[in-house]
Amino acid sequence: MKAPNATIAPLTEPELLDLGTRAFRGLGLPERDAQQVTRILVLADLFGLTTHGLSRIESYGERLNVGGIARTPRITVQKVAPALVKVDGDNGVGPLVGMHALEAAMAAARECGVGVALARGSNHFGPISPYSLIAAEAGFASIIGSNATTTIAPWGGSDARLGNSPIGFGVPHPGGDPFLLDMAMSVVARAKIRNALKRGESIPDTWGTDSQGRPTTSPAAALDGFLLPIGGHKGYGLALMVDLFAGLLSDAAYLTHVKSWSDAPDQPQNLGHFFILIDTSRLGSPSWLEARMRDFAGILHDSPASDPARPVIVPGEIELGKMRRQRREGVVLDATTYDLLQQYARRVPA
Amino acid sequence: MKAPNATIAPLTEPELLDLGTRAFRGLGLPERDAQQVTRILVLADLFGLTTHGLSRIESYGERLNVGGIARTPRITVQKVAPALVKVDGDNGVGPLVGMHALEAAMAAARECGVGVALARGSNHFGPISPYSLIAAEAGFASIIGSNATTTIAPWGGSDARLGNSPIGFGVPHPGGDPFLLDMAMSVVARAKIRNALKRGESIPDTWGTDSQGRPTTSPAAALDGFLLPIGGHKGYGLALMVDLFAGLLSDAAYLTHVKSWSDAPDQPQNLGHFFILIDTSRLGSPSWLEARMRDFAGILHDSPASDPARPVIVPGEIELGKMRRQRREGVVLDATTYDLLQQYARRVPA
Repeated sequence: MKAPNATIAPLTEPELLDLGTRAFRGLGLPERDAQQVTRILVLADLFGLTTHGLSRIESYGERLNVGGIARTPRITVQKVAPALVKVDGDNGVGPLVGMHALEAAMAAARECGVGVALARGSNHFGPISPYSLIAAEAGFASIIGSNATTTIAPWGGSDARLGNSPIGFGVPHPGGDPFLLDMAMSVVARAKIRNALKRGESIPDTWGTDSQGRPTTSPAAALDGFLLPIGGHKGYGLALMVDLFAGLLSDAAYLTHVKSWSDAPDQPQNLGHFFILIDTSRLGSPSWLEARMRDFAGILHDSPASDPARPVIVPGEIELGKMRRQRREGVVLDATTYDLLQQYARRVPA
Repeated sequence: MKAPNATIAPLTEPELLDLGTRAFRGLGLPERDAQQVTRILVLADLFGLTTHGLSRIESYGERLNVGGIARTPRITVQKVAPALVKVDGDNGVGPLVGMHALEAAMAAARECGVGVALARGSNHFGPISPYSLIAAEAGFASIIGSNATTTIAPWGGSDARLGNSPIGFGVPHPGGDPFLLDMAMSVVARAKIRNALKRGESIPDTWGTDSQGRPTTSPAAALDGFLLPIGGHKGYGLALMVDLFAGLLSDAAYLTHVKSWSDAPDQPQNLGHFFILIDTSRLGSPSWLEARMRDFAGILHDSPASDPARPVIVPGEIELGKMRRQRREGVVLDATTYDLLQQYARRVPA
């Protein structure tokens, strides 16, 4: 048994999977469900996306404890057409609903060349890139999105009515690194604005608005206001489209109908996600795809860097590099996360 | 017969369709093909997207005249799986290839709930929103993209290796206005930088880089360099993903393999497009969708505007408003476009 100060020692991937699974079992999830949730969160940690990894045990645990997330949901998968599936997550843990939807979309894509799953009744489902990686490793190109709690004002508006909804893309590369893109719609995360405030610096007027929706260079005013989307009206439009596919078409909540994760922890959020998968094996042979993907990455890498110290990279390169390193060297969890995982894991009868 | 000065009089939609069809017939296209190309370009003009409307007769005509585009292509549609179609445009006019791909994707989506068409052997296919509108009016939600001639440097790179590839989304709204988003990846179009230069103004350092790939506030330096994508590395990643789906997976050219439209007008470009369609009638009734779409738009419109003179709008609202107005009042073509259309139209034997 590990002592609390073991948090400073790196944990291997199997240790993380074991600890996470036991923790979610301690929170009341069946073994198989706990495994699926943990798989996504551990991939997030391996990618270096620690804010979306096992540290989520804190907020997921809080909601599971107060009944804001169902421990044993009855997730239903309804095939409404050969390539189109509706998933009702019955308010289960987000990554569990996400994995059900991903698997349903992959099954449909195997059959029809393309598969789409639209999920409702879900919650925060982790980052997107773990799903994209699982899909890419099985040969599927993917476009995946989720809606989110409202934190962004409509373009030209003055109150929070849409979420910083993420969209992700993945393209397989047989024998090499897939391309993985996972992006939210804001120019920067709020943390970056908080850091500017701490340092007493002003911010570019493209990062956020004040509480009246007016662009501001004051980090204090921006923290009191709203994040701005990338490209102004373009990112606004993109965030809406993600919500239309993930929330509106899936029969989930959308825009202001999404309940706040922090203000109403005992209320189901009814988040929605979409998973669009294309079976690349129907398009050409693995060697055809491998040659094209290698060539594609090579063209980009060969562009002379404007700063020689920072060579051109391709989407997913940083995350996959971190994953390889951490699979060798292990992942160091922060002490709070580690303690909380242990605490929940101890609830499981031996 | 119209006199040359008739260009100042607005033309009705049927007049535009007739004139455009005759002009493309004059350029050697069969009647039905000329109609399909014209349908897309006239929708662009109705939307107010004049740079992507019938004015394209100039560049399309130039390439058709020198054999850079095939007049009578043998477009093939190959169903590689029930929901997945590959289209080879055989170097036909872009909107003709686009319409074949759209129709193939709609047919697959009717059958399977989802349909994807990947097109190769194509050319500039006009703006995306006309395709999204046609799809939306038939009940399909859509994600559509195309790659393009290289004009953008990789993030941190210093030469043009990717296109300002557009992506578009559409969601139907039975009895109301669909949501339509059609966006390229650059923060601004080059024209906006040229205007700043004319006025002697500096530009924000997020619009473009100099020829070394370094962000610049000088419009002259930016015109000598590269457009910057929205959200920096985010828009860079998004542009790559559009090219991966539109170009790489479709077996078309991608990145620097795309031949320049202007430098090599007699060389096939081998552009690629993707069309992803979801049949919304499989998800719920028209009244279910109508109520949700109306509610969704209402939530956004109700956000108090930060500038009371500029109320919050939703994607597509401007274009669809222009379309309604111009369907009533007609479209005024510029004199050059009108004269060129007439000139090509006169080639058709009576």
